[in-house]
Amino acid sequence: MSMLQENDPYMKDMKQVETAALFRQIIRIMEELRQGVKKPYKEVIDVASGDPQKTGMKPLSFVRQILAACLYPQLINDNKLPVDVRQRAQRLLGECPGGSVGSYSATRGMPDIVHRVSEYISRRDGGAWSNPENIYISPGSQWSLANIFQILVNTEASTRTGILTPVPGYNTSILSIKELGAVPVPYYLDEEQGWELHMEELHRALASAKGVCNPVALYIINPGNPSGQVQSRQSIQEVIQFASEKRLFILADEVYQDTVYGEKSEFVSYKRVLAEMGPPFSDTVELASFHSASKGMLGECGLRCGYVELVNLDPAVMKYIYTQFSKDSCAPVLGQIALDVMANPPQPGDPSYPFYIEETQHIRTTLVHNVNRALTAFNSLPGLTCQPGEGGVFVFPRLDLPPRAIQKAKEAGLGPDTFYCVNLLEDAGVFARPGAEYGQKEGTHHIRICIMTPPDIMEELLRRVTSFHTQLMKDFS
Amino acid sequence: MSMLQENDPYMKDMKQVETAALFRQIIRIMEELRQGVKKPYKEVIDVASGDPQKTGMKPLSFVRQILAACLYPQLINDNKLPVDVRQRAQRLLGECPGGSVGSYSATRGMPDIVHRVSEYISRRDGGAWSNPENIYISPGSQWSLANIFQILVNTEASTRTGILTPVPGYNTSILSIKELGAVPVPYYLDEEQGWELHMEELHRALASAKGVCNPVALYIINPGNPSGQVQSRQSIQEVIQFASEKRLFILADEVYQDTVYGEKSEFVSYKRVLAEMGPPFSDTVELASFHSASKGMLGECGLRCGYVELVNLDPAVMKYIYTQFSKDSCAPVLGQIALDVMANPPQPGDPSYPFYIEETQHIRTTLVHNVNRALTAFNSLPGLTCQPGEGGVFVFPRLDLPPRAIQKAKEAGLGPDTFYCVNLLEDAGVFARPGAEYGQKEGTHHIRICIMTPPDIMEELLRRVTSFHTQLMKDFS
Repeated sequence: MSMLQENDPYMKDMKQVETAALFRQIIRIMEELRQGVKKPYKEVIDVASGDPQKTGMKPLSFVRQILAACLYPQLINDNKLPVDVRQRAQRLLGECPGGSVGSYSATRGMPDIVHRVSEYISRRDGGAWSNPENIYISPGSQWSLANIFQILVNTEASTRTGILTPVPGYNTSILSIKELGAVPVPYYLDEEQGWELHMEELHRALASAKGVCNPVALYIINPGNPSGQVQSRQSIQEVIQFASEKRLFILADEVYQDTVYGEKSEFVSYKRVLAEMGPPFSDTVELASFHSASKGMLGECGLRCGYVELVNLDPAVMKYIYTQFSKDSCAPVLGQIALDVMANPPQPGDPSYPFYIEETQHIRTTLVHNVNRALTAFNSLPGLTCQPGEGGVFVFPRLDLPPRAIQKAKEAGLGPDTFYCVNLLEDAGVFARPGAEYGQKEGTHHIRICIMTPPDIMEELLRRVTSFHTQLMKDFS
Repeated sequence: MSMLQENDPYMKDMKQVETAALFRQIIRIMEELRQGVKKPYKEVIDVASGDPQKTGMKPLSFVRQILAACLYPQLINDNKLPVDVRQRAQRLLGECPGGSVGSYSATRGMPDIVHRVSEYISRRDGGAWSNPENIYISPGSQWSLANIFQILVNTEASTRTGILTPVPGYNTSILSIKELGAVPVPYYLDEEQGWELHMEELHRALASAKGVCNPVALYIINPGNPSGQVQSRQSIQEVIQFASEKRLFILADEVYQDTVYGEKSEFVSYKRVLAEMGPPFSDTVELASFHSASKGMLGECGLRCGYVELVNLDPAVMKYIYTQFSKDSCAPVLGQIALDVMANPPQPGDPSYPFYIEETQHIRTTLVHNVNRALTAFNSLPGLTCQPGEGGVFVFPRLDLPPRAIQKAKEAGLGPDTFYCVNLLEDAGVFARPGAEYGQKEGTHHIRICIMTPPDIMEELLRRVTSFHTQLMKDFS
């Protein structure tokens, strides 16, 4: 076993079965609550996934009105819905085969929607060129990512395929890599520097793969999940130069691009920076950029839809992509329509514009409020430190538990963070996820919490965590 | 190369690239029509897939009303929708995490819906036991099937895994098997006997696998796709006995169970027959039965949802199933809700009941009308013979083309049926699929046509096919 494998930071101290156990635990608790079993809480606050509607965030009315009208076209003739909604629904239905959202679409997505997503990308990126032929709509960004991993990973080569992956990073992606028999090559984000990505760390990580695997790609999550950092334009430039020099395919998971809240931060896409860098980078560096209707302002996880844009891929590889993405019929048509609305929100002058702005502004304000409240609360507790995030929908506070608590966890056969989450759920009814799932530096422990919740839920959550944490520190001090 | 491999009936005379070419052809033609290029037709009739809404069949109002109300809950307070729709939507939203269809559900499906699907199966099967723990909701039956194939196929064994597959059979399933490196072991349905399944043919097929692969499963499509036959209870019993004796896992693709129209036919599920046979069959024969919201009365292909029920699987295998089905997050929540409505349609006394019955009756009448019209038309043409179907949504008429037409096809590098479909699409604007995609007996050629279309579309289709076919027979006689 190589150094790299010995030091695999993902799921350290945590068997995959423990993740399943946490899910079984919450199902049991919810069932007990339903049966009236007395607990210190009446409802579980589930902040375990980036699923804003689960904790009560409201969906955008414009999105829902259009979807409802497409599903039940009688609503198009009903003047209760704004006229721009009705016109938009009418146009979208005209683009569906047979005029119905109940028909299959082209496997890569409805051509008109693919086209408009391409225009949206171009607008977002200051006019950078985008080709609809390079865009694939799928049942979600993780689905796309897993399929592209599958194309990148050579299962027949004697040396295993390596993919550079962030620590901490999104666990589902890391699992996809491992399932294919490929090697995640961890690079560590610098927690003390707000989870910044350092170039020397990328170089170190790449060197660590020597003799272990053949690294072919660099997986980036920006804004970070769970870490919440947002890369600067300069940082992205440096990463692109590195990828170009080392011939690495860049997989840019940019699903949190619409939720950047740091005062000095802005989201800049890899595609844009690549285009602006010009040749040779702009026409050689291979890039896949992922986005989703599940995240950002929409948060429509239940619709299951996302897209990927592919840049500079060899036409021979694009053929494989086409086949791979055609296997599973099309993405849900209603999800595709949500994606279209994401790419083309109401414009000034449209009847739906004022309320759309009000709703999106409310989401932004909530996010900023919640993150500030969470930082203040967590950083005021002994044994908890939380880096200020700039984007995404998570905080990833660090736990420094007393040695007796760590010992107790060990006795229970659990890592300290899993031990913490199990008890937080049982005692306080807060469902958070242990850092071990996302990877963490040896000897450090974290929990991941989704902060895209209504403010009152966030207050209740902070109250419960504070009380639980204070008691735990007392019990084990 | 073994006899079995030499005689692979699937895609014979047809490279997979030709399927893609047909799809490119239709995209080109539709683009030309859009640009006003003059053709003998103004619109293409697309009967290439089992997608009723694509050709203008109307979705069921009850389904669409509930989905619209779940998406845009303001509609629940609007008395324009029937009260049972509003109550149902209210209850379903109460079952969604966070009360919204925009949240992720449990990966195997919303627990309440899984439960009701289980009850529905039990009712359908005359009270036969069904356990919600054995039911998995997924983005579609083909998705489920591909995932179960993946578990059945042992890629590491020195002998390849074999799966008995019908000829003709659904092409996507066959492709899934081939992609996994497994061997489809063809058994032929008897065209002259209305595509009946004969036991001696299953025995012959199994014997043909000797020395080639290790057959572990038997894939059945009932009602047949593309063949439209419906198995009798006795035939199913015999198949189950055979599977039991030969230790084969039965994969029962029963997605057309709600569209059985043969006067003397009725759909009986494998699960029901298995339960009624009693021990040792009922507690040993492994079975997976697939159903979908895309087919039957709903025809909601664009929603992407289906379920599979697993019977008698080893608990160790069920663990793999759980993992395999948890990889891709949940099925679209709106699709799950459609499945719930399929399992629980309006009942007598409910406000929506009369119109629901009217709509479903209309679909049934249309199907019977269309199949009769198609049989009469096709069987009156020289060189076309069509077996009377009993169920499903396809006819699969056989082509007996003049030798000069076959020669012409050969010169074009195409099989006779592909040649026919290419020209039918180009000259008559009818998009049908060549039999080669589904497998056919050596020397026979067919086309597959979806007959679930509005009657006027069916008439226009028959008019076009008749005219095209007559001209072709004349040109090449």
